[in-house]
Amino acid sequence: MTDAPAPTPSYSYLGPAGTFTEAALKQVPEARGTNWRPVNNVGEALADVVAGRSVAAMIAIENSVDGGVSATQDALATVPGLRIIGEYLVPVNFVLVARRGTALAEVRVVNAHPVAYGQSRGWLERHLPAHGHIPATSNVQAAASLFEEGDRADAAVAPPGIVELLDVDVLARDIGDNPNAVTRFVLVGRSRELPAPTGADKTSVIVELPDDEPGALLAMLEQFSTRGVNLSLIQSRPIGDALGRYRFVIDLEGHVRDERVADALLGLRRFSPNVIFLGSYPRADRREIQYHSKYDDGVFVEARDWLRGILSGEPEG
Amino acid sequence: MTDAPAPTPSYSYLGPAGTFTEAALKQVPEARGTNWRPVNNVGEALADVVAGRSVAAMIAIENSVDGGVSATQDALATVPGLRIIGEYLVPVNFVLVARRGTALAEVRVVNAHPVAYGQSRGWLERHLPAHGHIPATSNVQAAASLFEEGDRADAAVAPPGIVELLDVDVLARDIGDNPNAVTRFVLVGRSRELPAPTGADKTSVIVELPDDEPGALLAMLEQFSTRGVNLSLIQSRPIGDALGRYRFVIDLEGHVRDERVADALLGLRRFSPNVIFLGSYPRADRREIQYHSKYDDGVFVEARDWLRGILSGEPEG
Amino acid sequence: MTDAPAPTPSYSYLGPAGTFTEAALKQVPEARGTNWRPVNNVGEALADVVAGRSVAAMIAIENSVDGGVSATQDALATVPGLRIIGEYLVPVNFVLVARRGTALAEVRVVNAHPVAYGQSRGWLERHLPAHGHIPATSNVQAAASLFEEGDRADAAVAPPGIVELLDVDVLARDIGDNPNAVTRFVLVGRSRELPAPTGADKTSVIVELPDDEPGALLAMLEQFSTRGVNLSLIQSRPIGDALGRYRFVIDLEGHVRDERVADALLGLRRFSPNVIFLGSYPRADRREIQYHSKYDDGVFVEARDWLRGILSGEPEG
Amino acid sequence: MTDAPAPTPSYSYLGPAGTFTEAALKQVPEARGTNWRPVNNVGEALADVVAGRSVAAMIAIENSVDGGVSATQDALATVPGLRIIGEYLVPVNFVLVARRGTALAEVRVVNAHPVAYGQSRGWLERHLPAHGHIPATSNVQAAASLFEEGDRADAAVAPPGIVELLDVDVLARDIGDNPNAVTRFVLVGRSRELPAPTGADKTSVIVELPDDEPGALLAMLEQFSTRGVNLSLIQSRPIGDALGRYRFVIDLEGHVRDERVADALLGLRRFSPNVIFLGSYPRADRREIQYHSKYDDGVFVEARDWLRGILSGEPEG
Repeated sequence: MTDAPAPTPSYSYLGPAGTFTEAALKQVPEARGTNWRPVNNVGEALADVVAGRSVAAMIAIENSVDGGVSATQDALATVPGLRIIGEYLVPVNFVLVARRGTALAEVRVVNAHPVAYGQSRGWLERHLPAHGHIPATSNVQAAASLFEEGDRADAAVAPPGIVELLDVDVLARDIGDNPNAVTRFVLVGRSRELPAPTGADKTSVIVELPDDEPGALLAMLEQFSTRGVNLSLIQSRPIGDALGRYRFVIDLEGHVRDERVADALLGLRRFSPNVIFLGSYPRADRREIQYHSKYDDGVFVEARDWLRGILSGEPEG
Repeated sequence: MTDAPAPTPSYSYLGPAGTFTEAALKQVPEARGTNWRPVNNVGEALADVVAGRSVAAMIAIENSVDGGVSATQDALATVPGLRIIGEYLVPVNFVLVARRGTALAEVRVVNAHPVAYGQSRGWLERHLPAHGHIPATSNVQAAASLFEEGDRADAAVAPPGIVELLDVDVLARDIGDNPNAVTRFVLVGRSRELPAPTGADKTSVIVELPDDEPGALLAMLEQFSTRGVNLSLIQSRPIGDALGRYRFVIDLEGHVRDERVADALLGLRRFSPNVIFLGSYPRADRREIQYHSKYDDGVFVEARDWLRGILSGEPEG
Repeated sequence: MTDAPAPTPSYSYLGPAGTFTEAALKQVPEARGTNWRPVNNVGEALADVVAGRSVAAMIAIENSVDGGVSATQDALATVPGLRIIGEYLVPVNFVLVARRGTALAEVRVVNAHPVAYGQSRGWLERHLPAHGHIPATSNVQAAASLFEEGDRADAAVAPPGIVELLDVDVLARDIGDNPNAVTRFVLVGRSRELPAPTGADKTSVIVELPDDEPGALLAMLEQFSTRGVNLSLIQSRPIGDALGRYRFVIDLEGHVRDERVADALLGLRRFSPNVIFLGSYPRADRREIQYHSKYDDGVFVEARDWLRGILSGEPEG
Repeated sequence: MTDAPAPTPSYSYLGPAGTFTEAALKQVPEARGTNWRPVNNVGEALADVVAGRSVAAMIAIENSVDGGVSATQDALATVPGLRIIGEYLVPVNFVLVARRGTALAEVRVVNAHPVAYGQSRGWLERHLPAHGHIPATSNVQAAASLFEEGDRADAAVAPPGIVELLDVDVLARDIGDNPNAVTRFVLVGRSRELPAPTGADKTSVIVELPDDEPGALLAMLEQFSTRGVNLSLIQSRPIGDALGRYRFVIDLEGHVRDERVADALLGLRRFSPNVIFLGSYPRADRREIQYHSKYDDGVFVEARDWLRGILSGEPEG
C-alpha cells in the first residue's frame, strides 16, 4: 500500500488569465506546475490563503503612478496571520483594443479599469478628446466586456497579453502616459517560517501611532534612524474608526534577522500600540542593502556582550 | 445708461443633485442663490475654477474610512494656481435602493461607487453574500443607472437624499459599516487673498522630499516640531515618475499669518525642492488651535527685534 | 588554632580631617569604625583604590557653583576598573579664620583654595576690597598655612569644622556667596558587583563621540530620549589629544538593571567608539525616578518575546 | 590751534610680560604700538574693558588639555556688554626653571600654575616622583616666586620666554605631556560693531535651557542641525543658583550675517529663556567654513520672497 500523492498546491491571483497579476505569478519558480486560482479581488485572494485553499496569493501592492493599493494595504492590516514571502515587479504597459473591424476614429466610449484609465488618460485625451469612460473591475474584464450584450463601449484599455485571450484588434500600443510605469506585487502566504536573509531583503510592517502624542510620527521614524535602517516606503492609511487616526504601512531595508532591523522592530513594538509584522523577503530588484558599518551585526553582538559583562559583574574584557 | 448687472457667480461640484458633495456645498453661505454647476469628476471641477467658469469648486478630500481621495490630492499637486478657502464635513450614510417592486432577496448585482461599496461591504456580504458589483462613477449615478437600458444591476448603494431625485424603493437604510463615517470636503478657488485668521485654522501644503537623502522625512517633520506646529494630516502620494518617489500632502494646525506657521513654511521651503501652498482657512469643526505659549507670535517678534539689534550694532535693550 | 582577624578596611579621602570630603565620608554607614586615609588629591585617592590599599575613596565630583571637578572627571575617564558606588551631598559653607588676636581690619592677604576663593569672592570684595589672594591646595591647608613659617597670609577661608582642628579665631561666618551651595561627592571603589536597584538610582557613564560626524551629539542624546531616559548631568571634557575633541560625562536617571537604561546603554555602546560604565548607585537625595509607563520593564520584556516569536517562527500569541 | 592728539589706546592681558597671553596679544596687528596693561586675572581684564580703560582684553578661553577656562566662560556669561572680536592660538610649551646653580636632583618642591602643572604632570612624576606642588596664580608668577622671600619652591614650570625676563637656569625643556598642546585666546572688546564676514568665521553664544523640560538639550541642538550649522564647541557650565542648572557655552561655525546662522540664532532666542550673543569673528585658523549648498544665503532669501508673496496675495512667480 502506498501513500496517496500530495495534492497539487494552489496559488490565487487576480484573474482572469492575461492580467498583470498573472504576469507577476509567472515570475515565481515555485508556482510552476501548480494550480492557479483566478479570483475577483484582493479579499478573495487572501481568504483563499487564510482558509488553506491556496498556499499563497499574488496581489498588487503599489504602482509607481497610483501609489499604494488601498484595498491590499487595508486587508494586510486587518486579516491576521498573513506573511509576505516575495516581491515582484511587472512593467505596466497598455494597448487599446476593439472588436474586429473597429477603426480608432469610431471609438466614442472606452471601457477601462479606473487605474488603467488614469494611466492612459493623456493618450486618450489627445487621440479621443470626446470619449466617455465606463469603469471595469479589472483590465481583462474591460476588454471582455466588449463582447457582452448591452455593453456600450467601443474600445477597451487592456494589458498587451490580451491578444492571446480575446479576438480583438489592437488600435494602439504603448498608450500608457508613463513609459517607466511598473506595478509592485507581493506574494502572500501564511507560513510563519522566515525566508533566509539574502543581503538584499525588505521587511514590511504596519504600525499604529500612539494617540494624542504630538511628534509621534517623528518619534517613530527615529526608531529607524537611530539604527541606520532606511525606509523604502511609508504610507499612511486611515484606521477607519475616526477622522484623523492613521496607521502606517512601512517597508524597511533589511531582514528581521539583521541585528539593526531586529532592534528597530523592538523599538517600534515598544513605541506603538499595535505593530503587525508582515514579513522579511528578498527584494524584487535583488539590489544589495547598503548601510554604514557602524550598524553591522557584530556591533550589536559586541554591545550585548559588554552589557552582559556589566550585569554579571565580570571584569571587562 | 446703467451698468449691466454682474453675472451670477458659479460653484462647481460633483453632481448630479443628491450627492454628498452637494450636501457640502449647501453648507457654504456665499454659495446660496448662485449657479451650481454639477460636473463629473474632480478634474472637471478644478478645470472650471482654473478657466474662470466657477469662482470655486467643492471637492472631497478625505473620508474617515477610505483615506485621502487620491485624485483630489494629485490634482491639487499638479494644477497650478489653486487655493483651498474652506473645509466642510458631511456625515456619510448609505441606503440600498432598487427599482420599484424589487425585493432584497432578488438582488444579485449591486451598482455602487467604489468608495461607497468599500464602506458598505460588511452589510452587503452579510445580507447579499453572493452579490456581484458594478462600479459607478458617482453615488447618484449608481442609482440612476438602474433606469438605464442594458444595465445589469438590481440595486444600488446611494446617499439618503436619492429618494428626492429618483423613483426608487429603499431596501435598507444605514448600511454603512461605520456609523461615524464622515467625508471631508474642501472648497477650492483661485483667489490669492488669504481668509483672515480665526484662531481655528488649518494650512494645507504639498511637499516633495529632497532625493536620496536618508532621514529626509524625519528632517521635514522637524521643521514643524521645532516650531510647535502640529500636523492633522500627512499622506504620501507617489509623484508618478519613478517607483519610490513621493510627495506629502500635509494639513497643519494654524494660519500662515501665525508666526510659528510662517516660520515652519520658510523652513519647509528651504528644505524641499518643491512646496505648494494650498491655503490657510477655517477648520470645519471650528475647534481652536492649542499650542504652547513659547510659540506665541510675540516670541517670534521679540527674537527678530533682538537679532535686528545685533545686526545693526545698536546696544541691546 | 584560630583564623587571624580580617584586616580593618580603609577608605581614602581628601584630607586632612575637617575637609568637606571628610564630612561626606561621615555619611557612609559602612565606613564607620574603619581606617580613614587622608590623601592630598584625587589621583592619590584613586590610586589607593586601584592598588587595593583602600576599598573605596570619597571624591568631589561637582559643586553647584563651580561645575564639574575636572580632575575627578578626567581621572574617572582614564583610570580603568573604577566604579561609583554611592553619591553624597554636603552643604558648602565657609568661615574666615585667622591667628588668635587678628582683627578683620588687619587682614591684607587671604589664603584660600581656588574653589573656595571663587565661592566667597563677593563677600571678600565687599569687606576686604584691597585683599590679596594666595592659593592653597585644600581648604584645611589654607587655614593650616597660617601657622607655617614664612606664610604671608593674615586670614584663611575654611570649612566651619576647622575650629575643631586648629586654634583660630573666626572673623566671619557664612561668607559663601551662595547660601544654597552644595558639593556632590561620589564614593568610588573597584568592586564590579552592582548595588541593587532602589527606584531612586543614577547611572554614570563617560562617552566619546565618533569623529567628524556632524550631529553626533544630537544622535547620542537621541539614544536616551527614544528610551525615555533623562539626564541629570552632561559635561563635556576635552580628550586632550587635539583641540575640539571632547568626551562627555553623563549621569542618567535609573539603574542599569532598569530595561530602559540597559537598552539606552546598548545604543550608546554601538554609537560611541568608547563608553566607560562608571556604575549604577542610589541617588543622594533618594528621590524616586519618574518616567512614562511606556518605558516600563514589562514593555521591553513583551517586545523581546514578540520578536523572539517572529524569529522562531512560532504563531503570534 | 590744533586738536590734542588722541590718547594711545590700551589692551589688557594676563601679565606680566612673558605669559602665553602676551604671546597671543603679539599676534594682533591693531595692538602694535599701543599701551599693554598687564593684569592679574580675567576679572580685572574684563573690568578694564567695561570701564573703558582698555579697548580690548586678551583672555584664554580654552586649551586642548584642560578644556574651557571656567573663569573666562563664567565672566562672559555674567559681565554684560562684552563682545569677542578675534580668536588666537598659541602653542603651549613648558620649561622647568630654577635659581642659578640648582640641579634637577635637588628639586623637591615645584611652583606651577595649576593648569601648567596639570599639563606637565607626566614629566614631573617620571623625573621628580617625590615632588610637592605649590600653586601659582600665573605661569610667570610661578617662576618669579623663586625669588620671593620665604618661598619654599626649588623650581618652577614656566613658558619658554621666561628666560628673557628672569635670571634662571633651565633644568629641562619641552616638559609638557602633550607636544601638540595649544591654548585658544579671544580678544574681547565692547564695540557693538560686527567684524565683516570672511567666510571663515565663528559665532559665540551662551545659552540657558528652559527649566524642567526633558529633551531640552536635544531641542536646542536641533535649532542648529535644521539649519546646517555645525558647532565647534559646546561646554556646559553650572549657572550656580542650584545643583543641576546649566548654561551652555557654544561656538558655531559661521557669522551672524550668514543667513543660516542668523536663523539658527532666532530659533535659539525663541527657545531659550536667556541667550547672550558674544560675537562673530574670524577663526584663528582661517579655515573656510564648509556647509551644504542647501543652506546658502540665497535659499533663505528665496524662501522669504516666496512667503512674502503668499502673505501679500500676489501671484507666485
